[in-house]
Amino acid sequence: MLPFARVTVVGLGLIGSSIARAVRASMPTVRLTGYDADAEVRETARRIDLADDIADSAGAAVIDADLVILCVPVGAMGTAAASFAEELPAEAIVSDVGSCKASVAAALTEALPGATIVPAHPVAGTEQSGPEAGFATLFRHRWCILTPAADTDPLATERVAEFWRRLGADVETMDAEHHDRVLAITSHLPHLIAYTIVGTASDLEEVTKGEVIKYSAGGFRDFTRIAASDPTMWRDVFLTNREAVLEMLQRFSEDLSALQRAIRWGKGDELFDLFTRTRAVRRSIVEQGQDDAAADFGRSHE
Amino acid sequence: MLPFARVTVVGLGLIGSSIARAVRASMPTVRLTGYDADAEVRETARRIDLADDIADSAGAAVIDADLVILCVPVGAMGTAAASFAEELPAEAIVSDVGSCKASVAAALTEALPGATIVPAHPVAGTEQSGPEAGFATLFRHRWCILTPAADTDPLATERVAEFWRRLGADVETMDAEHHDRVLAITSHLPHLIAYTIVGTASDLEEVTKGEVIKYSAGGFRDFTRIAASDPTMWRDVFLTNREAVLEMLQRFSEDLSALQRAIRWGKGDELFDLFTRTRAVRRSIVEQGQDDAAADFGRSHE
Repeated sequence: MLPFARVTVVGLGLIGSSIARAVRASMPTVRLTGYDADAEVRETARRIDLADDIADSAGAAVIDADLVILCVPVGAMGTAAASFAEELPAEAIVSDVGSCKASVAAALTEALPGATIVPAHPVAGTEQSGPEAGFATLFRHRWCILTPAADTDPLATERVAEFWRRLGADVETMDAEHHDRVLAITSHLPHLIAYTIVGTASDLEEVTKGEVIKYSAGGFRDFTRIAASDPTMWRDVFLTNREAVLEMLQRFSEDLSALQRAIRWGKGDELFDLFTRTRAVRRSIVEQGQDDAAADFGRSHE
Repeated sequence: MLPFARVTVVGLGLIGSSIARAVRASMPTVRLTGYDADAEVRETARRIDLADDIADSAGAAVIDADLVILCVPVGAMGTAAASFAEELPAEAIVSDVGSCKASVAAALTEALPGATIVPAHPVAGTEQSGPEAGFATLFRHRWCILTPAADTDPLATERVAEFWRRLGADVETMDAEHHDRVLAITSHLPHLIAYTIVGTASDLEEVTKGEVIKYSAGGFRDFTRIAASDPTMWRDVFLTNREAVLEMLQRFSEDLSALQRAIRWGKGDELFDLFTRTRAVRRSIVEQGQDDAAADFGRSHE
């Protein structure tokens, strides 16, 4: 028994197009509709046959749906939801994939009064963007976090949970505020730091950009991957999850100052102790299947 | 015509054991000798047949060599060199693989007065350590930087350059001080930041370590790889290249403060501009073959 029969994906970038592909692969009898505000993306989606139907308006896309998933930047959620509010069937469940949950839930609730909303966040992605970057296995063995409000129908939550399990994800539920703090440290701050150091390296005068690129295998290149993520998506994340990001950033800066001081005063033991501790974190991530065990991310060395 | 006929590797960790394997693969007629100060490592090296001979003392290891490569943490270079100074043949060339060049050159010159020294730094590695972690293709298409002193015999430098080219590396020459500044930004600062954020995440109270690990695929896990690198090696790097690291760290902190301010005051355009600029850096690194083009480092998604 499928959790939904008619699924509409609004926003056909990396995540939306991956959901479409994963639905096709795991629930082939689902009637799948797609929509994107960008006509060029709709054109591409039709050409690569992403869904049974690519609608030309958000309203037409949702008119028959029992699940509508918003896959647009978090700053655009409210507008996107408003664009189909009138055509949304009363019994449809609305979900999203945004990286910030408290503000998105508020925006959706405001745009869709009375609708059943089950916010979700699949913790998965790559640094690439657009409808052609997606793939069906993106969510496998990754976590999808649901953040239903206290008064959300548990059956609606369970149907969305089952949908994500069918796409290969493991599902966890927590409140939106806690989600936003967890993701501030596991995702938002890492992106912010990566963007910063790539910017810092680009702006040096005495070390050329050519040298930075040439010798990037010493560690720098690892940071450039997430610093190549979609600029609109990430601008919105930082503006939306502002408080939690600023708090985590404050903690990080304090820790960095402590390390700076240890280097300045030659406190080797402090450095060694931290570096030993951090090694264990990597081990746990690999053990829990959240990263490849292969050295160097399994990069090819041929 | 091989650049060297009798090569000795002192220090059989990831880099030393990779050199041994690469010499075996690319220059099988070279007489290869290994030594490590740790008896357990010597035992492992013998068991996995890393070299023609694993000597039981540094002096015995170098007595017949025409190239001796030191592959020990940068803080241990002077002591390691001193341990074979008396047995070093007059015509032998001494090199190393340290991540800091000015201080290592000084330490080697002091320990080995009159010896021909050609410092080198292959910009390659993984987060794993020890004699069993090495592999023959580690240096392929990676840069190896030589930092000979102004009065070094150019023929000696060229022989070491040819040695690295045979192992698959591209070779570049620069002065030691410039090397130390380039690597401070492309390697040392990235490691410092990665160690810091992994530490920050581990120390949170309201977000558990379990949650950090569980949801690490949002970006955090990328940082844990280099934060799993060898603690002794990296402690020594930060203490040794102190000035350049502290200067780069200062620039990074300023840039991070600017970004913090942009978030606090909702300056979306500033964020968007930086995030667009950093994307181009990734593209250049991939174009120049310094990282895989595949999304997500080519991680498996099965």
